[in-house]
Amino acid sequence: MKEQSGFEKFSELTRPALRQELERVIAASAENGTPGLHEMITYQLGWTGENAGPKAEGKLIRPLLVLLACEAGGGDWKNALPSAAAVELIHNFSLIHDDIEDDGDTRRGRPTVWKVWGEAQAINTGDAIFALAFASLVNLVERTSPEIGLQAGRIFHRTCLRLTQGQHLDISFEYQDDVELESYWQMVGGKTAALLAFSLEVGALCAGVTPEIQAHFRDFGHYLGMSFQVQDDILGIWGAEEQIGKSTIGDLVTRKKTLPVLFGLAQKNSFYEGWNAGEITSEKAVVLSQILQSEGGRAYAQSTADRLTDLALTALENANPEGEAGDILKELAKILLKRQD
Amino acid sequence: MKEQSGFEKFSELTRPALRQELERVIAASAENGTPGLHEMITYQLGWTGENAGPKAEGKLIRPLLVLLACEAGGGDWKNALPSAAAVELIHNFSLIHDDIEDDGDTRRGRPTVWKVWGEAQAINTGDAIFALAFASLVNLVERTSPEIGLQAGRIFHRTCLRLTQGQHLDISFEYQDDVELESYWQMVGGKTAALLAFSLEVGALCAGVTPEIQAHFRDFGHYLGMSFQVQDDILGIWGAEEQIGKSTIGDLVTRKKTLPVLFGLAQKNSFYEGWNAGEITSEKAVVLSQILQSEGGRAYAQSTADRLTDLALTALENANPEGEAGDILKELAKILLKRQD
Repeated sequence: MKEQSGFEKFSELTRPALRQELERVIAASAENGTPGLHEMITYQLGWTGENAGPKAEGKLIRPLLVLLACEAGGGDWKNALPSAAAVELIHNFSLIHDDIEDDGDTRRGRPTVWKVWGEAQAINTGDAIFALAFASLVNLVERTSPEIGLQAGRIFHRTCLRLTQGQHLDISFEYQDDVELESYWQMVGGKTAALLAFSLEVGALCAGVTPEIQAHFRDFGHYLGMSFQVQDDILGIWGAEEQIGKSTIGDLVTRKKTLPVLFGLAQKNSFYEGWNAGEITSEKAVVLSQILQSEGGRAYAQSTADRLTDLALTALENANPEGEAGDILKELAKILLKRQD
Repeated sequence: MKEQSGFEKFSELTRPALRQELERVIAASAENGTPGLHEMITYQLGWTGENAGPKAEGKLIRPLLVLLACEAGGGDWKNALPSAAAVELIHNFSLIHDDIEDDGDTRRGRPTVWKVWGEAQAINTGDAIFALAFASLVNLVERTSPEIGLQAGRIFHRTCLRLTQGQHLDISFEYQDDVELESYWQMVGGKTAALLAFSLEVGALCAGVTPEIQAHFRDFGHYLGMSFQVQDDILGIWGAEEQIGKSTIGDLVTRKKTLPVLFGLAQKNSFYEGWNAGEITSEKAVVLSQILQSEGGRAYAQSTADRLTDLALTALENANPEGEAGDILKELAKILLKRQD
């Protein structure tokens, strides 16, 4: 993901404060004779352990979106720090558990928490991070008001539930021959879009925008997530290796039920037959990707992504984002959505 | 656990309302095309699936303590329903994850969630219940005030973190030869006492008691949990099978580092030698339990439990619990703490 200077500048400006906010919240995890728990949490965040550092920390896109939305809503990004930290913690809680559920060995170039400390400790560490995310959100009241804190709490628990609903569907898909498109959208809506929608909405909420503007920010995050996921689905079959950092056609080999695949299966044609004819080797996957493209799977997914991108950009327009932060959000949306214009 | 009529009466009176409150909160889990998730949650709560019913539901001690504390603090138990539901949900979230972490096959006479649906779905279902617990707590504001809701939120996230800290230590103990007594108390304080302390405190909070009275209720719950755990430790080595529903001396065979065991190991005498001399068979466990008793492990644990029971009853006295609910709490404390007087 190439970054542009506006976003980079904002990231450099806010990152130390975000780190400080996270450190303050996480400190509590070591307080009752549990430095070991604290160590696992800081490892997950990329701060400690072998190869700790910026690469292991990730780009912090979600918390930065919180802060940007607050500024673009006319607020001071500092007031949104507790909710930005909460978002980053929820993201990491879900990563720890997803890595166990999906049997993932590496994350951001390092062994996953369960690989290092075992499943039992990893499940529990995810739970601790979940609790800390909530702790961070409660701190929001100090920076804003009880009313805003309460409203943030309401959208926060809905977001957490949506995440688990998306994950539930994703796990279920593995054992289902027949996945409806509606279920796919429910899954992506929960697994990818919910936390992005929350990030934008809670940031704007901290700025004290009107409910209408708040809804536009939320919609922007929602469609951003939806579009991003469909593009990821396309890259998982037709992406160049250097572009996505993992082997292309990989999603076919692992039989992942992505949008292009669901389209192809619904045609009940050559792709459908190939998919159902035993194991998918790398060689077979290359052939299947070509068949799927010729049957219209790639074009369908691309036009869907384009439509979602339009919806995202329209929502952002309607949110009427202010000042430099508004410009950065627009820039960022275009980069994330790989829009060429 | 034998129940007395006061508690039974209160339980019968409040149970339908508690069930309704839980159903209302849990309904959200099915809303986004995820009836499967809802099914796993209701199975965990003992409402659905084979052998569903009162036995599978458990005694609901924790939520009933919330309601009792509210009444005994001079409030109306109905106002504490959202927090009672939150407590029951947190309890069940931790049970689902504990069962995976401890490789537990059965719970309340039925296969555990991970045994039925696999680990991935079970981890995720626990997460969903965690999110729902938070949702329920937020509903508290409708029944009380934003101030009480906010304070409940603060003690809630601390409680959730304490639970994971206790669990972290418990998992760690398995691989530690040398467990300090201080760590044992930290573990029990988190794993057993924290949720009981929260139950009593949040109930009293809903009644709007003074901070001092609230602290006494919390202390009562804390010491109740601590004493209960030590008694459970004693039963795990010297209990009669019919009394505890699981095989006696079991905690020695599984090498559980309970309070009597830690006492015995610290003596560096015959028990210490036996413990460290290879596998502990059932036969060897019987001998070890006798050695541990002769070295003073049982008496030490019993006097510790008695001291904690005194602290619990004193805290309850200081809380000055009102009316019938106050009497029931006193009754219940004596039953739970197996106090003969």
